Amino acid sequence: MTDRKCGAWLIGALGNISAAVIAGAALLRRGLAEPLGMVTSIPPFQGLDLVTVENIVFSGCDIRQGRLQDSLQQLLDGTGAIGPEKLASIREDLLKVESTFVPGTCRNCGPAIESLAASGNGEDFHLREEISSFRHRLREFKREHGLETLVVVNLASTEPPVPASLPSEDLDALEKALDTNDGSGLRASTLYSYSAIQEGCPYVNFTPSTGALTPAILRLARKRRVPVMGNDGKTGETLVKSVLAPMFVWRNLEVMSWEGFNILGNMDGCILENPQNKSAKLETKDLALSHILGYSPHSRVHIDYVPSLRDQKTAWDFIHFRGFLGAGMSLQFVWQGFDSLLAAPLVLDLVRLAEFAQIRGEYGLMPHLASFFKAPLGVRAHALHEQVQLLTDYVRKVKEGRAPE
Amino acid sequence: MTDRKCGAWLIGALGNISAAVIAGAALLRRGLAEPLGMVTSIPPFQGLDLVTVENIVFSGCDIRQGRLQDSLQQLLDGTGAIGPEKLASIREDLLKVESTFVPGTCRNCGPAIESLAASGNGEDFHLREEISSFRHRLREFKREHGLETLVVVNLASTEPPVPASLPSEDLDALEKALDTNDGSGLRASTLYSYSAIQEGCPYVNFTPSTGALTPAILRLARKRRVPVMGNDGKTGETLVKSVLAPMFVWRNLEVMSWEGFNILGNMDGCILENPQNKSAKLETKDLALSHILGYSPHSRVHIDYVPSLRDQKTAWDFIHFRGFLGAGMSLQFVWQGFDSLLAAPLVLDLVRLAEFAQIRGEYGLMPHLASFFKAPLGVRAHALHEQVQLLTDYVRKVKEGRAPE
Amino acid sequence: MTDRKCGAWLIGALGNISAAVIAGAALLRRGLAEPLGMVTSIPPFQGLDLVTVENIVFSGCDIRQGRLQDSLQQLLDGTGAIGPEKLASIREDLLKVESTFVPGTCRNCGPAIESLAASGNGEDFHLREEISSFRHRLREFKREHGLETLVVVNLASTEPPVPASLPSEDLDALEKALDTNDGSGLRASTLYSYSAIQEGCPYVNFTPSTGALTPAILRLARKRRVPVMGNDGKTGETLVKSVLAPMFVWRNLEVMSWEGFNILGNMDGCILENPQNKSAKLETKDLALSHILGYSPHSRVHIDYVPSLRDQKTAWDFIHFRGFLGAGMSLQFVWQGFDSLLAAPLVLDLVRLAEFAQIRGEYGLMPHLASFFKAPLGVRAHALHEQVQLLTDYVRKVKEGRAPE
Amino acid sequence: MTDRKCGAWLIGALGNISAAVIAGAALLRRGLAEPLGMVTSIPPFQGLDLVTVENIVFSGCDIRQGRLQDSLQQLLDGTGAIGPEKLASIREDLLKVESTFVPGTCRNCGPAIESLAASGNGEDFHLREEISSFRHRLREFKREHGLETLVVVNLASTEPPVPASLPSEDLDALEKALDTNDGSGLRASTLYSYSAIQEGCPYVNFTPSTGALTPAILRLARKRRVPVMGNDGKTGETLVKSVLAPMFVWRNLEVMSWEGFNILGNMDGCILENPQNKSAKLETKDLALSHILGYSPHSRVHIDYVPSLRDQKTAWDFIHFRGFLGAGMSLQFVWQGFDSLLAAPLVLDLVRLAEFAQIRGEYGLMPHLASFFKAPLGVRAHALHEQVQLLTDYVRKVKEGRAPE
Repeated sequence: MTDRKCGAWLIGALGNISAAVIAGAALLRRGLAEPLGMVTSIPPFQGLDLVTVENIVFSGCDIRQGRLQDSLQQLLDGTGAIGPEKLASIREDLLKVESTFVPGTCRNCGPAIESLAASGNGEDFHLREEISSFRHRLREFKREHGLETLVVVNLASTEPPVPASLPSEDLDALEKALDTNDGSGLRASTLYSYSAIQEGCPYVNFTPSTGALTPAILRLARKRRVPVMGNDGKTGETLVKSVLAPMFVWRNLEVMSWEGFNILGNMDGCILENPQNKSAKLETKDLALSHILGYSPHSRVHIDYVPSLRDQKTAWDFIHFRGFLGAGMSLQFVWQGFDSLLAAPLVLDLVRLAEFAQIRGEYGLMPHLASFFKAPLGVRAHALHEQVQLLTDYVRKVKEGRAPE
Repeated sequence: MTDRKCGAWLIGALGNISAAVIAGAALLRRGLAEPLGMVTSIPPFQGLDLVTVENIVFSGCDIRQGRLQDSLQQLLDGTGAIGPEKLASIREDLLKVESTFVPGTCRNCGPAIESLAASGNGEDFHLREEISSFRHRLREFKREHGLETLVVVNLASTEPPVPASLPSEDLDALEKALDTNDGSGLRASTLYSYSAIQEGCPYVNFTPSTGALTPAILRLARKRRVPVMGNDGKTGETLVKSVLAPMFVWRNLEVMSWEGFNILGNMDGCILENPQNKSAKLETKDLALSHILGYSPHSRVHIDYVPSLRDQKTAWDFIHFRGFLGAGMSLQFVWQGFDSLLAAPLVLDLVRLAEFAQIRGEYGLMPHLASFFKAPLGVRAHALHEQVQLLTDYVRKVKEGRAPE
Repeated sequence: MTDRKCGAWLIGALGNISAAVIAGAALLRRGLAEPLGMVTSIPPFQGLDLVTVENIVFSGCDIRQGRLQDSLQQLLDGTGAIGPEKLASIREDLLKVESTFVPGTCRNCGPAIESLAASGNGEDFHLREEISSFRHRLREFKREHGLETLVVVNLASTEPPVPASLPSEDLDALEKALDTNDGSGLRASTLYSYSAIQEGCPYVNFTPSTGALTPAILRLARKRRVPVMGNDGKTGETLVKSVLAPMFVWRNLEVMSWEGFNILGNMDGCILENPQNKSAKLETKDLALSHILGYSPHSRVHIDYVPSLRDQKTAWDFIHFRGFLGAGMSLQFVWQGFDSLLAAPLVLDLVRLAEFAQIRGEYGLMPHLASFFKAPLGVRAHALHEQVQLLTDYVRKVKEGRAPE
Repeated sequence: MTDRKCGAWLIGALGNISAAVIAGAALLRRGLAEPLGMVTSIPPFQGLDLVTVENIVFSGCDIRQGRLQDSLQQLLDGTGAIGPEKLASIREDLLKVESTFVPGTCRNCGPAIESLAASGNGEDFHLREEISSFRHRLREFKREHGLETLVVVNLASTEPPVPASLPSEDLDALEKALDTNDGSGLRASTLYSYSAIQEGCPYVNFTPSTGALTPAILRLARKRRVPVMGNDGKTGETLVKSVLAPMFVWRNLEVMSWEGFNILGNMDGCILENPQNKSAKLETKDLALSHILGYSPHSRVHIDYVPSLRDQKTAWDFIHFRGFLGAGMSLQFVWQGFDSLLAAPLVLDLVRLAEFAQIRGEYGLMPHLASFFKAPLGVRAHALHEQVQLLTDYVRKVKEGRAPE
């Protein structure tokens, strides 16, 4: 196994997912947890020269102030996960990581997110200034820890959809907007991804925020030869959807309606109370179905904030379908999963795989990571088994010493 | 498209599935129904020279007496399928098919099945006599309709598991048992499959009855160069299982418990009230899970007879799994499907594909049909996507003019 | 048993509920159906001198044009209810009733409803003219059939909530608005209830439309000594809610969240696609819970139009509660009921009980009918067992020859 | 409020329910928990002179050896209930109670229970000896703590049903069997209840074990003027059943089938793996339904042991019913509750109410406690609202200074 070190810079570093990522890595390092939920721990990845979880160094930024320990406590309560003694043993680890956090930006993230910000939304600064400060921080962190690679992962709350605009379509227009401090067509996520890529840091957009990987930004990634991937981590209801939907295709059963109702109570759910932010989320959630089926049944996805559930996302899906002689039948499912604990191991996977891609000289989109995302960029495969195939094909080719196409 | 004709001889011809198969084919022939639920109607099969549903001629046998029309009426009630006018238009078709039915045997099928029989259980006849009479009937039917191929499909109720015995293991021992009229190690399903194969008829075991395709019978099929396949049509809960289980593997989530509870009210359910018959069924239902997962979680499958549900199988599955940091989560699903209407189109598919295999000179097991069965013989693939891959690979190779391996 | 006759005038006479009411009564009259679902058929009502279903004569009005037979066919499809032969035997009965239908009004009902109207929304006529024409029609129908009592039941689609206005609060202001043809503070439902009461017809508001029984109209009912009741028939999810919620009170379990998600595909659901119309519905659905619990948990009720479900309302409710030592637990339920077939027998009950009240000289609100409504007027009891108690107390007192208070 | 003290002697003192009772009382005493789940904390009981939870002194017996703290830890894990700091604060309280526990008996409890016993099943002792030793212990505990009343509560695992025998029917025969040391018609639960009643201790049978309150024992209770009640605490699925079933009666909807499937993973579930022990449980679970409906629909209750669920009982009930025109509809519910945390507060309620009854000179069965039990002895009311009415009537009469009938 390699002894390479790798940095992971988390945007939204005080959030639930980040807390689970950092604590989970610390527990794994101390042998106090199993790598359940981590895709890169299953047999196909054995023998692949990925950076070890032990060798990942964490930092990040957040617009809020708070304690990682508190996020963690709140998150774990009622999960039946890791007990208090084990948590106590990583308290120092968390404090150490937390001490490296810096304030984030929420430029153009809308009132739902801005209301969380400890200080202003960043508009007092020139865009170039913000970028420069962020890039400086990334550079410093790499230097301090002697890191060859620093993967930036966006785990922040969902922004409103990015407006159609020249700066999101065209790289020159983006550069010009930055020069003239015209932030109207940008979001915080754009500033982050722009900075990361300019610093040569692989960038993973685990959120549905569409500002992170616009056509202009993708152009920049190719130009700067940096690997990037998104959008929106696939952790729960959409995951189940992407394994169930192909069954209807294979059995020639016509899906008439597929209704989904999600309730959750964490910060993510709270931000999605705001219709603007919710619309971005619903866009990515609803994509897979019609792609897999080849037609669009009646389908709506509802998300509702139910505080008492905290991190336990609960989803009810009702699928109404027609079979032989037109008979109507149904399949319902209820998913009850801890959202952050489903997301966190995937983040560790993505850091490992993004680092690996950069080491290997790959850049631009990483389509082999499609299975991790609700709306994978540059990939037509939406059925989970096809996406998994992309990943195992990649691994096989790498092992065979061939460059993946 | 071919103008080949093909026969389909249904064992359990007055049962719900058979009624749906025969009525469905008649409706399709008259353009009164869509081929929903038929796998061979989806795009990958276009251009494949399969016999058309219009050109399938039906007959069969049953131990009960009754009217196909009654089975059909009872079955369709409450399904929202095909209305009374359309049914009226195929009344003559059904009568015509029904007039060709002959009495079946229920030798050694246990009291649950024997109590349904219109006449005795067949023990008055010498085994060789029964076989001879059944073979004669198959031959006659082929002759009357000028059929090159006659596919025999077992749709009868689940027999108790076949006892471990020489005649089921060894072909010579089987022949000897038939000669000496020693039926102790045989079941009705064995007599049927033996006769069919001796007559060169492809044989499909859509039931869990293990007497149908014993090692001895498989030996006979290879010897006589006849294609055969089984066991147990995959229509409902197990189908869903075989698409959901791989998700847990791919996401490295540990399934701790997978409990299934099936309730149904048709004849199939009634027979399964008997513990002997039920045990055969549970065996095939429970296979897929541990094969896919690679370990055996706590798992029990319950089947219960609830008359008011009639053909509407309702299943509740509760899946308890562990993820990152050991957190317990769950997925539940409720499947509400009309069992016979899910099975019938698959039977049409299997007749078409078995005929096709015979025409092409294939024989022995047909592993490319694994996706149709709960416990596919000779196949390690239990995940539905892998089984579907076997089928599409077969189709591709046939189209490319290559013999499937 | 009495030989009194009684009329039932249905607003929304071509809708699903109306079709089920009229067909159901015809089938009961001919002995082709059991009175399942009718509350007045259970033992406590035996010996009560209610008008028989056989003696109810139906008519009504609708803003749409169409055939009762078509509504019925569409409604029954897939329910497993009454078969085609029985339906054929009442074809004439339906045609006869249908021939008496007259056009309705949809004054101020909003675009969702108005778009269904065969002719205009009625604004070409003076309000007094509309009322006079409607009253004339009621009078004529009573005369033609020699009816002492004609009960008017509102089964029309949900109107937007009635705006706060003088004419809804004050009877004089209402009379003045009618005189000056100022319809701004009125709805179609107001014109109907006003007319019915002026003609001495008991009025039942089975819809959530708040225009039907405003304070001004209730005043009129008392003045004209006419019995009235509403609002909104309690048929499905709210019914279950009103039996489950008391359990949490009795066991001192704290309901933290109660989320409800309703999907349905009939005309009712279609109209509720419109946010204005939906808001009226949600108001009545959400009332019971906090009344029963004595506090307001997080609770939202969602209604979504899913055409493929037609009349089969499907509701998922998720109840999150806390018990001893603060442990979080949950109860979920899924209700799958045919909305119109749940409503129709209650409409027959209400006609019988409203006629009975008028015969007995009762007038104003009929609180003993609370159990039939989601938002019973003038009643504090929301738990179903309390509401049922009101009804059985009423019956007992009547049988004992005492006037109910 | 009274300053009376009261003892609670728990049979099965190391089990989950007992651990929750003792810990819960300790937390309540220290103000570290709310009395959620306790019926006697809701308004109707205010002003009733019940012993306070603070003044209850606990002890008991168990056939197993072990630590209360361990039972508690195992039980609370994953419940989201009381955190580690609060638990630490009652550690001493638990140790103190635990130090008073004595070994129990499992005479005739069958192999499932006997296999848990730390020492033998008690058969080495004469029955009179066992009784005498148990009575001595009760007397001592009362004396040590100066208790006027000591309530004995059976929380032990479910025994096989008591065989029909003279000693269970007739008190003289029981006395004779004890004299002659003939234990064939007795169970451990009989020895406990006999001893308690002879010592004048109110006895509550929270289990389904039918040996506890046989006709002979009830006779003894009346003779010794001791209040007793049972059987089987109503905590989950049956509780929901007893509120839902009346809805079908009130709406004249015919229940065709009511299937229940319970899975749980605690010791209780483990014991119920044994068919003998399970049969006793199923008897009490299935009683309520036909009593409430007035007829017996198809109904089976399944209980299955699923270790991973530990104390979280999960139940799926499927209710199939017919309404107007015979249409089939359904209601499903899924109950997810922590069994011991649902039971524990009811045990505290029962201790308080049994003590109160004794203080007031009541004796024999306590029908006003019917709502606490699945199979309440001597009570016809099975609907929860009727049972609650019995309790509130009792409270009202007591407050009015009247003796309850």
